Amino acid sequence: MFDRVRIVLIETSHSGNIGSSARAMKTMGLSQLCLVSPKAVDEQSIALAAGAADIVKNAKIVSSFDEAVADCSLVIGTSARLRHLQSTLIEPRDCAEKVTKHQGKVAIVFGRERVGLYNDELIKCHYHLTIPANPDYSSLNLAMAVQLISYELRMANLMKNGNAAQTFSEKTIESQSVTVQEMEYFFNHTEQLYQSLGFIQNQGVMQKLRRLYNRANMEKNELNILRGMLSAVEKGLDLPKIDS
Amino acid sequence: MFDRVRIVLIETSHSGNIGSSARAMKTMGLSQLCLVSPKAVDEQSIALAAGAADIVKNAKIVSSFDEAVADCSLVIGTSARLRHLQSTLIEPRDCAEKVTKHQGKVAIVFGRERVGLYNDELIKCHYHLTIPANPDYSSLNLAMAVQLISYELRMANLMKNGNAAQTFSEKTIESQSVTVQEMEYFFNHTEQLYQSLGFIQNQGVMQKLRRLYNRANMEKNELNILRGMLSAVEKGLDLPKIDS
Repeated sequence: MFDRVRIVLIETSHSGNIGSSARAMKTMGLSQLCLVSPKAVDEQSIALAAGAADIVKNAKIVSSFDEAVADCSLVIGTSARLRHLQSTLIEPRDCAEKVTKHQGKVAIVFGRERVGLYNDELIKCHYHLTIPANPDYSSLNLAMAVQLISYELRMANLMKNGNAAQTFSEKTIESQSVTVQEMEYFFNHTEQLYQSLGFIQNQGVMQKLRRLYNRANMEKNELNILRGMLSAVEKGLDLPKIDS
Repeated sequence: MFDRVRIVLIETSHSGNIGSSARAMKTMGLSQLCLVSPKAVDEQSIALAAGAADIVKNAKIVSSFDEAVADCSLVIGTSARLRHLQSTLIEPRDCAEKVTKHQGKVAIVFGRERVGLYNDELIKCHYHLTIPANPDYSSLNLAMAVQLISYELRMANLMKNGNAAQTFSEKTIESQSVTVQEMEYFFNHTEQLYQSLGFIQNQGVMQKLRRLYNRANMEKNELNILRGMLSAVEKGLDLPKIDS
């Protein structure tokens, strides 16, 4: 399971935090680290990684959130307990359960030390992970948050393996899950069509639709139906078919 | 509950670990810190404590294990998974449950960074706490261990208190949730429109759409958007508006 799970750190400012996060991951059996535009990966990262320097050295470095999660079918972003995210908020234990049950690739995304994830990043996440910290002082260090989430993943995995063996082929199910990139095509197609119909006039509608469909965690055959519906409308309206 | 729970750090060598542990405690609502013969408590401790410097400053400093736990009726010591301790070994989640149920004062004792607790200390503990880490790399930083244990304590306490806050937010969400009847209107509307477009020709498609949208557990504002999209298509096609 742990090979499917990627920890993504966005624009980390303190290089030491990258090392501490790698150490936290390795103590819980995780190894896939992806860094989005880190300020630096240096000897401080390696020093704080201690016996997990291999994870720092093998980390994939990319330049955007989209690139980091493109091949994942479940994206979970850490967040404060924001009101407008209420319906998609999960705590570490639920998160671990969802990840354990999910069959495709998973990204768990940690934001910048001071300001977390931006709204345009949050909207691309299926779930928003919040740690039920002390409301009077909720300032967890980045690597501490990585430690807690990795711990819950390990616990969930240990429990799952303690139970019955899997009876289905993971590969079959993985092939049915939808990647972030496929969802992006669908969202863009929807936006263009309903803009041309005059229904979509601002970003609010698309944000709500993204939230809804990401939450539903669609399967490929469901996405195909929704795309077929877009094409049927275009055909009915005699619009040129949008290539997606 | 948290006033009854004391975190005890034995002969900590890195003063920074004292600060990081204090920060970890405070994020989870713990405040009672006791240090047994620390090598130093200095500006590094305060710097790493960040907003939890008060916990470092108020820490009780004593010179022996016995003194640190004297008034406690439950003493839990962290330990590697040692064979001779097998009958008293517990993991963080069981630990949190035992602490939550216990009525008197509790000490959770963390050993030295390199060598942990000595045998004569372990023998004085009621239980021995072990973190189910990766057997190939189980080297958790001291403050990370404090973070995990404090987190489990907080989770157990939140569950015990069966929090009122959740009841409130559930109510808010309930008022936004969509009834079965409203979903039926939406499904019928969708079916009629896409039948007229020639896209829906059998029940299979509607069954898949029902499954998708029911799983998403829609909110009222989301349903309103989807209904608006149906109307926009009807308007664009110049179809008579279906009354739903």
